[in-house]
Amino acid sequence: MTKPLQVVGVGNALVDVIASIEEEFLERMGVERGIMQLIGTARAIELYGAMGAAREVSGGSAANTVAGLAVLGSRTAYVGKVKDDQLGAIFAHDLRSLGAGYDTPLAPKGHPEETGRCLVLVSPDGERSMNTYLGVSEHLAPEDIDEAQMAATEWIFLEGYRFDGPESHAAFARAIRAARAAGGRVAITLSDPFCVERHRDAFLAMIRADVDLLVANEHELKSLYQTDDLETAIGRARADVPVTACTVGAKGAHVIAGDLRVHAEAAPVRVVDATGAGDLFAAGLLHGVTTGRSWLDSARMGCVAAGEVISHYGARPEADLRALFAAAGLA
Amino acid sequence: MTKPLQVVGVGNALVDVIASIEEEFLERMGVERGIMQLIGTARAIELYGAMGAAREVSGGSAANTVAGLAVLGSRTAYVGKVKDDQLGAIFAHDLRSLGAGYDTPLAPKGHPEETGRCLVLVSPDGERSMNTYLGVSEHLAPEDIDEAQMAATEWIFLEGYRFDGPESHAAFARAIRAARAAGGRVAITLSDPFCVERHRDAFLAMIRADVDLLVANEHELKSLYQTDDLETAIGRARADVPVTACTVGAKGAHVIAGDLRVHAEAAPVRVVDATGAGDLFAAGLLHGVTTGRSWLDSARMGCVAAGEVISHYGARPEADLRALFAAAGLA
Repeated sequence: MTKPLQVVGVGNALVDVIASIEEEFLERMGVERGIMQLIGTARAIELYGAMGAAREVSGGSAANTVAGLAVLGSRTAYVGKVKDDQLGAIFAHDLRSLGAGYDTPLAPKGHPEETGRCLVLVSPDGERSMNTYLGVSEHLAPEDIDEAQMAATEWIFLEGYRFDGPESHAAFARAIRAARAAGGRVAITLSDPFCVERHRDAFLAMIRADVDLLVANEHELKSLYQTDDLETAIGRARADVPVTACTVGAKGAHVIAGDLRVHAEAAPVRVVDATGAGDLFAAGLLHGVTTGRSWLDSARMGCVAAGEVISHYGARPEADLRALFAAAGLA
Repeated sequence: MTKPLQVVGVGNALVDVIASIEEEFLERMGVERGIMQLIGTARAIELYGAMGAAREVSGGSAANTVAGLAVLGSRTAYVGKVKDDQLGAIFAHDLRSLGAGYDTPLAPKGHPEETGRCLVLVSPDGERSMNTYLGVSEHLAPEDIDEAQMAATEWIFLEGYRFDGPESHAAFARAIRAARAAGGRVAITLSDPFCVERHRDAFLAMIRADVDLLVANEHELKSLYQTDDLETAIGRARADVPVTACTVGAKGAHVIAGDLRVHAEAAPVRVVDATGAGDLFAAGLLHGVTTGRSWLDSARMGCVAAGEVISHYGARPEADLRALFAAAGLA
């Protein structure tokens, strides 16, 4: 199956605002460690005012995956909403400059919300606590989905976070319908255990009906199936979906495809900022899948890409991922 | 002399847009290597469109110095103009969150220009080529100078780049008058050899009349005195100004104060991004001066602070400078 595009990602378009913090900052400000919390405008102002000097880097989970795919030479595009403002221009530039397609209509200058951003607080051990002001990204609507683009891609990759928002489910449904009608396949990432809590029934219905590849970490998969036992969750996923890729932190990742089960080791790197680990795992994995690699090699590519992105601040790759693949014997 | 403030910096308020490039990009795009070029809106759009994904970090030469001073615990403030837009809000946040004062009136939302930015292209060897769209920072006017603040500081620190722009000289003159009338001292950085070319006569007149401390690198000092010989330039500076601090790249820095001449070694670091080296040298130097240290120790502080900032992307310190001073025996 050769199509003009290999992967189109759909998600929340965000600019990351990244600052290092002392651990006590989280408790003092009432921030939950290591997860993503949605925040409103007032809380965004409060938290930004309290946090230190920051760097701004384009982010958004599925957008990070698309950026990784573009760096790897995949034919890829992104769908997500920014506003016609300065941060929106930065977000668009950073995708297009990598060679990724990005043509989602902008929210106009007069829109009451701004381009979304994620305040990323990085603890001394590299764990990140994310506080997301969705802004206009929440308003991605079915009419923002270009059915011709969805028909022109081998895979669509849907971000679980994008289940939050008034028209999200309808937008996803339109994307899935158009992709599947043209023989395309559907991957989804669960994004976050609390996101799974908020949308468990919708996730399960979609996964059982339409998903070919489920990407999750162990916490998300256990949350989805409401169990404390990873093997139980993996067994349930095996029954629900053709392929499950489950990351297990420093222990790497499992891929379960029917009776096949493989394991890839995590890359041996020092964690500076864990932001983007799952996003870049998905990029490496999808790059492998769309270039005809085995599930084991695809999972290994995912682990190498994730290792690169956690070794520096920011959730987009900075080193040459193809050179890293070659060094790992994956060229 | 104890005053409420130790150092007030005045300069171009800019957000840095930093991208790594292959060396050939500079020639292809007609960018001069290793210096600062002023660019207009059209060129900024062209260059930004051609350059890769970037990270945004608050910059501006004197603002970087003030940020370094704030991190070191100095009582410091900044004067420079941003607009009431998203990049302006980022710039203001990043200074205030460090404890630096920053109250320059914003250019209003309706202003035809935006907050200024500097497209920083970082070569593989860490050299940076800067392309500055001044935006509203160019419009700093005499009425933006708060005479009471200038009277309340021990030192003012003037950025050479700020000589570009219609009302700059008048703004500087007002700041100098107010500071000196209250017994304050005046430091200036020459910023860039081509900036010196553009404003040599004005620089020389100001230096001879009003400057207590001249900060420059070897290229700027040689440009100021139109000589290829550094010792000749140093001799001329010695006659013109009470103290000259001259950085000499990987060879560290000299300080010449009348008959005294001292030399500090550069910090032994791997250069990742040279942006901000001179700015942080000035921060360490001024911190030493305003805390009663010798010229040699002050220059050493400058070299340690410069070494920190060139070891990572971005022109603001990321490590604990006070801990680095302690490690270098300068606590």
